Amino acid sequence: MPRIAICAPARSITHADAAAVRALAQTVPGVALSFHPQCFLEAGHFAGSDAQRLAAFIECANDPSFDAVWFARGGYGSNRIAAAAMGQLGAAARAKAYLGYSDTGYMLGALARAGIGRQVHAPMPGDIRRAGGAEAVLRSMRWLAGDRTGEEPARDGHPRAAFNLTTLAMLCGTPLMPDLAGHVVMVEEVSEHLYAVDRLFFHLTAQLSGIAGLRLGRISEVPENDVPFGADAVAIARDWCGRSAIPYLGRADIGHDIANRIVPFGP
Amino acid sequence: MPRIAICAPARSITHADAAAVRALAQTVPGVALSFHPQCFLEAGHFAGSDAQRLAAFIECANDPSFDAVWFARGGYGSNRIAAAAMGQLGAAARAKAYLGYSDTGYMLGALARAGIGRQVHAPMPGDIRRAGGAEAVLRSMRWLAGDRTGEEPARDGHPRAAFNLTTLAMLCGTPLMPDLAGHVVMVEEVSEHLYAVDRLFFHLTAQLSGIAGLRLGRISEVPENDVPFGADAVAIARDWCGRSAIPYLGRADIGHDIANRIVPFGP
Repeated sequence: MPRIAICAPARSITHADAAAVRALAQTVPGVALSFHPQCFLEAGHFAGSDAQRLAAFIECANDPSFDAVWFARGGYGSNRIAAAAMGQLGAAARAKAYLGYSDTGYMLGALARAGIGRQVHAPMPGDIRRAGGAEAVLRSMRWLAGDRTGEEPARDGHPRAAFNLTTLAMLCGTPLMPDLAGHVVMVEEVSEHLYAVDRLFFHLTAQLSGIAGLRLGRISEVPENDVPFGADAVAIARDWCGRSAIPYLGRADIGHDIANRIVPFGP
Repeated sequence: MPRIAICAPARSITHADAAAVRALAQTVPGVALSFHPQCFLEAGHFAGSDAQRLAAFIECANDPSFDAVWFARGGYGSNRIAAAAMGQLGAAARAKAYLGYSDTGYMLGALARAGIGRQVHAPMPGDIRRAGGAEAVLRSMRWLAGDRTGEEPARDGHPRAAFNLTTLAMLCGTPLMPDLAGHVVMVEEVSEHLYAVDRLFFHLTAQLSGIAGLRLGRISEVPENDVPFGADAVAIARDWCGRSAIPYLGRADIGHDIANRIVPFGP
């Protein structure tokens, strides 16, 4: 039975969140969840200090009794510990899958760059807070138990990766940025104005010219601006992909919502 | 008498804005303003289409009868035309000063990279909309007339540059990014959560390791988050500068406000 360690490199979850997720896990034969106590810490914005979040991640990743590390929640903060974490991972960390999305994409990106384990864009325990969120949380648990039906299909045999748009844009040029050459890259965003989405695409596409193509996830909860932007998210993605000769490959079924599908990185 | 061309590579201004700025110019002997009609166009978010904004900038920059190009207003959009603009600038463009800040930092950055003209972080005509904004607008007009008292002092003889934090973070890694090695770089931000400021510093400092140092302008109008971040803007800047061995050199008197001082790029 796969044993899953849960830690929170960004924001915290509550004990009530964990209880709800544990109850769901009873319905999925073949997964055993272990919430690290660090998940429930609070230090300003974060689930504990950088040192506490780093230590919990390292403990989970280096423990050979776990088969996967599942990040509890996004928000913001993984980027503050990802570089330090990569230097402390041992052999047991290489045999694991790492699941998360949103801000925890910094961890997935850094792990992909370092070639450590299997990185998987997937719903997190924190998604239990969404209306209907059990569906999303169960998708990840079933994937961990071996059921691959929750995956977003690879259309063409290229290696894949999926990121939040801001997260990937902020990874670019840093020591955490993975080599995405030849990949189909999927991006999604939430709660950003369309002008900010346009700006992020400007920044990102200038630095992704070697990828196989880009697929656009959902750009959701766009705040209303004082003027309509004048182009929608698809037009924005097509425009910037075109300027950098990146093939625009259509939509991807990922986003900050309960339908968010699973994208294992790589082939 | 210096003749100043005004165009709008990002958002538009109104005829009322222009009238107010023209009236102020009457009080500053030695400047003659010429508002390009493109300043008043509207196309979605922007002061006209990319093609219209590009054409107006090129016309202003390449006209030998002007001594400076003053960007009308920020908002968003200069990055969409800056790369194309650099390829169309002639000899007259090299003899000019270019003034602006905020989003028009993309133009200043691209011009600095291309070594075209003098780039100057400075208040814009659009600042007339702020309470007390005449003070800011006059600061730029007086500078154009030869009065240097509105400049933020260079403390140590290093070349300088000043940018909005988001703008400079988005320039990094793109074909518009100037070489800031050896510069004292000043950054300011407005209307961003502290977690976003932290994230931008993560991204930026990873790519500015050759600079002489960083000075922090005002981080203003920070929206309230659901939790206090746990560190203020100075602590954030110090933290990320420290992680990249960038000297943190204290505050700079720049920001999205009427006190925003003038920073000519370079020595």
